[in-house]
Amino acid sequence: MQPLIINLAPTGMIPTKAQTPHVPISSTEIAEETITCAKLGVSMVHLHARDEHGLPTTDANLFAEIVSKIRENNSEIIITATTSGRKVTDVEQRASSLYLEHDLRPDMASLTLGSMNFASEASVNSPATIMRLAEIMQNKGIRPELEVFDLGMINFAKIMIDKGLIAPPYYFNILLGNPATAQATMLHLATMVNELPHESIWAVAGIGRFQTRANALGVVLGDGVRVGLEDNLWFDQERTKLATNPMLIHRITAQANSLGRPIATALEVRQRLGLQIW
Amino acid sequence: MQPLIINLAPTGMIPTKAQTPHVPISSTEIAEETITCAKLGVSMVHLHARDEHGLPTTDANLFAEIVSKIRENNSEIIITATTSGRKVTDVEQRASSLYLEHDLRPDMASLTLGSMNFASEASVNSPATIMRLAEIMQNKGIRPELEVFDLGMINFAKIMIDKGLIAPPYYFNILLGNPATAQATMLHLATMVNELPHESIWAVAGIGRFQTRANALGVVLGDGVRVGLEDNLWFDQERTKLATNPMLIHRITAQANSLGRPIATALEVRQRLGLQIW
Repeated sequence: MQPLIINLAPTGMIPTKAQTPHVPISSTEIAEETITCAKLGVSMVHLHARDEHGLPTTDANLFAEIVSKIRENNSEIIITATTSGRKVTDVEQRASSLYLEHDLRPDMASLTLGSMNFASEASVNSPATIMRLAEIMQNKGIRPELEVFDLGMINFAKIMIDKGLIAPPYYFNILLGNPATAQATMLHLATMVNELPHESIWAVAGIGRFQTRANALGVVLGDGVRVGLEDNLWFDQERTKLATNPMLIHRITAQANSLGRPIATALEVRQRLGLQIW
Repeated sequence: MQPLIINLAPTGMIPTKAQTPHVPISSTEIAEETITCAKLGVSMVHLHARDEHGLPTTDANLFAEIVSKIRENNSEIIITATTSGRKVTDVEQRASSLYLEHDLRPDMASLTLGSMNFASEASVNSPATIMRLAEIMQNKGIRPELEVFDLGMINFAKIMIDKGLIAPPYYFNILLGNPATAQATMLHLATMVNELPHESIWAVAGIGRFQTRANALGVVLGDGVRVGLEDNLWFDQERTKLATNPMLIHRITAQANSLGRPIATALEVRQRLGLQIW
């Protein structure tokens, strides 16, 4: 079996220090957490910047600060920038960190392939927005992290491929367990994986209490997992014990070890995804 | 096999007279088309009103005009009001026709169970909007036409059931073939049908060139179909011949006849769905 790709989502847009003291919020905290977790087996990190009040921000300077702090210490880990539209609608603002250059440029950027509902709000990514974000990524040599939450988003990926807006290999993150999209069941995952285009590399993520099961399916069957406090704050199903990012990674690597599955290094993943080797 | 429920969507929000002379636009045209199609086997009609310029409108007076013209002639056919948010975001405006009373009140109203992309725009139905529309329907004794475009929307239906916001029997319209949601394949339909709650009655609709195949699956396997110019303007896959609503219905009834399957009367469907008998 191919080495397992572990993608860390340490922060996201929602968790606060009030909810859990373990979520890294400042640029220094996010960078240090990433460096720590890289030593535990993380080859890729999905980053959201927060401002001085702890709120999500599209300020490219803050994103650059995180990137430079990480790369000073670790130039191999793959850095993915969010382009989330949950709090910001303007497409150029969503893409602000994609315009960073040279050693501040992210390797990859998230591209959610449709509109959908989260538990309490809509997340709007119109076809025009998705295509514009893909075009910017293509112009900048940034590979998309294709976020898919339901069957149709994979169909939209195929339309994007036909239009020449995304190129192989395709890195898909299949996110399961959100109330209004696909669930963390074998049938939903199987039906989605069955739709993936050739030359796809796929990871499995789970929202909230579904993270553990979704990740386990990724360890057993997938190319990788996305794990971290962005998607889930708790270590146990009963929500008695807050998780930390390193704890969540340890659980993944223990599962992989028990299956005799090696963990991918950042360099190996850069090669598989055709990313620049620094 | 149970008699087939034919739900006509004659107009929608998008088709224009310039695209096809066959789309009914004025209140009189929509009412007359409905009355004609009822004689051909339609037991339920999904209505969108248009204003004097032919544009979609949430003006309840125009909706009332269509309803009264239909019911003057045919008091049995089940009338469903759209609550679409494609052009209007305010939830009370989307629900305007649900406040009509007595013999102007629609029997049912559409309730799309999530946000999604159509071919060129997002359709936003936040969780709060969906729950508010369901609440109005419940208060007014209007049964929802549950529109589902992908797996997760059925999961959201189950959440609504748990919250007591929708009650059985559940009428589901499974819409296939839109670019960014589930496709008109056996596997997608099977996976969706597998998720339906008990006491579901389900119809299959298809967008554009997928209407024929989706409807055929509904005739063979489902409780019903939704058919009409709202979803598809063409009679053939090659797009050489414009369809009319009666032509599309004839194709459905011919398929049902060839399978020895009877067509449901409006009265039978009222009984199955627990709707008022006038």
